[in-house]
Amino acid sequence: MEILIKQALLDGVRQDIKIEGNRITQVAPTILPSPDAEEIDASSMAAIPGFHNCHTHSAMTIFRGYGDDLRLMDWLENWIWPVEAQMTEEDVYWGSKLACLEMIKSGTTAFLDMYSFPTATARAVEEMGVRAVLAHTLFDRGDAERARLDRERAYSLYEIFRSYSDRIQFSLGPHAIYTVSGEQLQFCHRFAEERDILIHLHLSETEGEVQECIRQHGTTPVRYLHRLGVLSPRLVLAHSIWLDEEEMDLLAAHDCQVAHNPASNMKLASGYRFGYDEMRKRGISVGLGTDGCSSSNNLDMVTAMKLATFLGKAWRSDATAVRAADIFHSATEEGARIMRTDAGAIAPGCKADLCLVRLDLPEMTPCHNFISNLVYSANGSAVDTTIIDGKILMRGRKVPGEEAILARAAEVAYKLMDKKAIH
Amino acid sequence: MEILIKQALLDGVRQDIKIEGNRITQVAPTILPSPDAEEIDASSMAAIPGFHNCHTHSAMTIFRGYGDDLRLMDWLENWIWPVEAQMTEEDVYWGSKLACLEMIKSGTTAFLDMYSFPTATARAVEEMGVRAVLAHTLFDRGDAERARLDRERAYSLYEIFRSYSDRIQFSLGPHAIYTVSGEQLQFCHRFAEERDILIHLHLSETEGEVQECIRQHGTTPVRYLHRLGVLSPRLVLAHSIWLDEEEMDLLAAHDCQVAHNPASNMKLASGYRFGYDEMRKRGISVGLGTDGCSSSNNLDMVTAMKLATFLGKAWRSDATAVRAADIFHSATEEGARIMRTDAGAIAPGCKADLCLVRLDLPEMTPCHNFISNLVYSANGSAVDTTIIDGKILMRGRKVPGEEAILARAAEVAYKLMDKKAIH
Repeated sequence: MEILIKQALLDGVRQDIKIEGNRITQVAPTILPSPDAEEIDASSMAAIPGFHNCHTHSAMTIFRGYGDDLRLMDWLENWIWPVEAQMTEEDVYWGSKLACLEMIKSGTTAFLDMYSFPTATARAVEEMGVRAVLAHTLFDRGDAERARLDRERAYSLYEIFRSYSDRIQFSLGPHAIYTVSGEQLQFCHRFAEERDILIHLHLSETEGEVQECIRQHGTTPVRYLHRLGVLSPRLVLAHSIWLDEEEMDLLAAHDCQVAHNPASNMKLASGYRFGYDEMRKRGISVGLGTDGCSSSNNLDMVTAMKLATFLGKAWRSDATAVRAADIFHSATEEGARIMRTDAGAIAPGCKADLCLVRLDLPEMTPCHNFISNLVYSANGSAVDTTIIDGKILMRGRKVPGEEAILARAAEVAYKLMDKKAIH
Repeated sequence: MEILIKQALLDGVRQDIKIEGNRITQVAPTILPSPDAEEIDASSMAAIPGFHNCHTHSAMTIFRGYGDDLRLMDWLENWIWPVEAQMTEEDVYWGSKLACLEMIKSGTTAFLDMYSFPTATARAVEEMGVRAVLAHTLFDRGDAERARLDRERAYSLYEIFRSYSDRIQFSLGPHAIYTVSGEQLQFCHRFAEERDILIHLHLSETEGEVQECIRQHGTTPVRYLHRLGVLSPRLVLAHSIWLDEEEMDLLAAHDCQVAHNPASNMKLASGYRFGYDEMRKRGISVGLGTDGCSSSNNLDMVTAMKLATFLGKAWRSDATAVRAADIFHSATEEGARIMRTDAGAIAPGCKADLCLVRLDLPEMTPCHNFISNLVYSANGSAVDTTIIDGKILMRGRKVPGEEAILARAAEVAYKLMDKKAIH
């Protein structure tokens, strides 16, 4: 199928964009349509590459608004973990469906996920048409039998994932250095190296984690990973707030990648001095993530961009820090590089993962600077059209079947939380 | 005219809401319609009081995205002030029209404004149907003649404003302690006391302002105001980030009110340790504001609520700080008290300034806790219907005439900035 997008604002000028199959094949001021091309009038819109959400737990959308304003351990021990222990594959599937819907509606075309039952999430991703890197979570907390099962499961899941469409990549998700042993991290490193897949790891999210690492291992988290020999370009570290300068140098030297999650870092009060400019100066790839809806509480990457810039300026007392254009780059092109999607730009040869953003909105008017308006003023609801892998998944903000997904996901959530629905 | 809202979610239950004239007259599980009542089916919506934006410069919407990521003085001296010097009454009118449109679309029903040409803003407010407290800006920077004119103008504007509808209140806006003398502040205090009107003043926005105050006046800003004898319940202070404990005690003792502006404080890197919980503990009325679009860059109070909570939790390293329910109270009921609108709640006798918020959105699903979803997950685009003074200004997100306002405001902005429009 061919799609011809007419007269979208792109990098400050009006362009036509031609999509054939799942690739962008031409970008030019005027492209003549083929007879069977589907034409989209984008004269009141801008075209942007789809957002890449570099850290989330998509199934946790069904936890949205369940247990807010709580201290981390109270929240985990009394609210999240007791419910998670009850979750079935079907719950994960519906949570992921809801997440995919929310992402399509706010312009996210690919996400990097870590949760139980990744095959259930894969099923949702296949059906919804989005792109994802799904991590098999390793989480044993010192239980040797669980650790062995986690390793075995890596092999079997790797095989299962080979049967999925190429919109889905398999990866490993050792949860964190305080829930997984050094040996398990080394297993993940070797497993991923042999297959050239990504490893998704929470690291240096809280000050407490760093202190515990020093107590247990005699050094800080990045140095600990370095000592284990597991720093590599396949490693995507979520959070990484509590790093010193030398740890950033180590990450740069080993081409490690980082996913910044301003919403959850702020809401859970994990820390706020994320070294965005400091990492980029060193050449570290920094992507942007929302984290899961239990902590963030949405999957809106436009809001995540706003939070990243505002927070970065605030704590540095420097209005020139974390610029809109930089964070937009992180949320799109850099995320695509991290997730290896072959998307992230609107140029011939790129995968056709892109969005059309409405310009005829108050928050987009006047348009002195489109990227500034998008990052500082708008939110995900400015996205009108979302195209992934050459397929139109949303147009005019309508996603086919969305009402049914909302209804069923809510039902699953209320049943799981054993709470009476308030509507 | 009578409006009957059917089955809106309100404080966790379904209610009908009856509006007669410009007041809410009944709230009950079932209300029978009068023959000529306009009925609104709100079975997929929640009802909330309209937001009260307690600090903005509405005409500055036409500066949106013009000069971001700059240091404060560079931004003011090279970008904002040269353009402001050129602004006409017509520019202010169109900027204010655009602002009113954006506010209606994101659920704001009243705003507290400070800018030049308040009569132009008043004209926009009258036409658009919103509610506003408009401040006459006093800004002389030591120029005695300008100071005299500012005082004279206070008298004449006060008279002019008497002819406006009761949706508009007049107030005084001495800009800041570094642009207006102590004598001028005392004039404002007496003028406002005699007429029982509000005074809107920027205070303790930056650390530099505090240092300069100590250098010039030998004490900190709140103590300086106290010494001048101008602390009063009519005083609404914008920002007030850089206060010590004793200054908060002084504000509480004099029933002063504060408008918190998290977006501009973060984006301009003015400071981030706003004492929200600390002020409320003392009984100080704290409202929420967006500030002007030149600094914030939108007028979305839902986003402002999110920023206030996230930031407040982050800098305190306390996830239980600045709770969603508290900030929602600030953005609605408390704002109404500050602005004396007689609105801010959905109860018989209140002015009919309210919104219906869509629940059938991914970011509102599941609905374990509506206020949490609204504050932490949603944004202003969740507002479906806005009613002010008993009139439906928006329904189904459509405001009559919005396209023309967007087009004309953009035109005015591009002409003013002498920039080529990019679309």
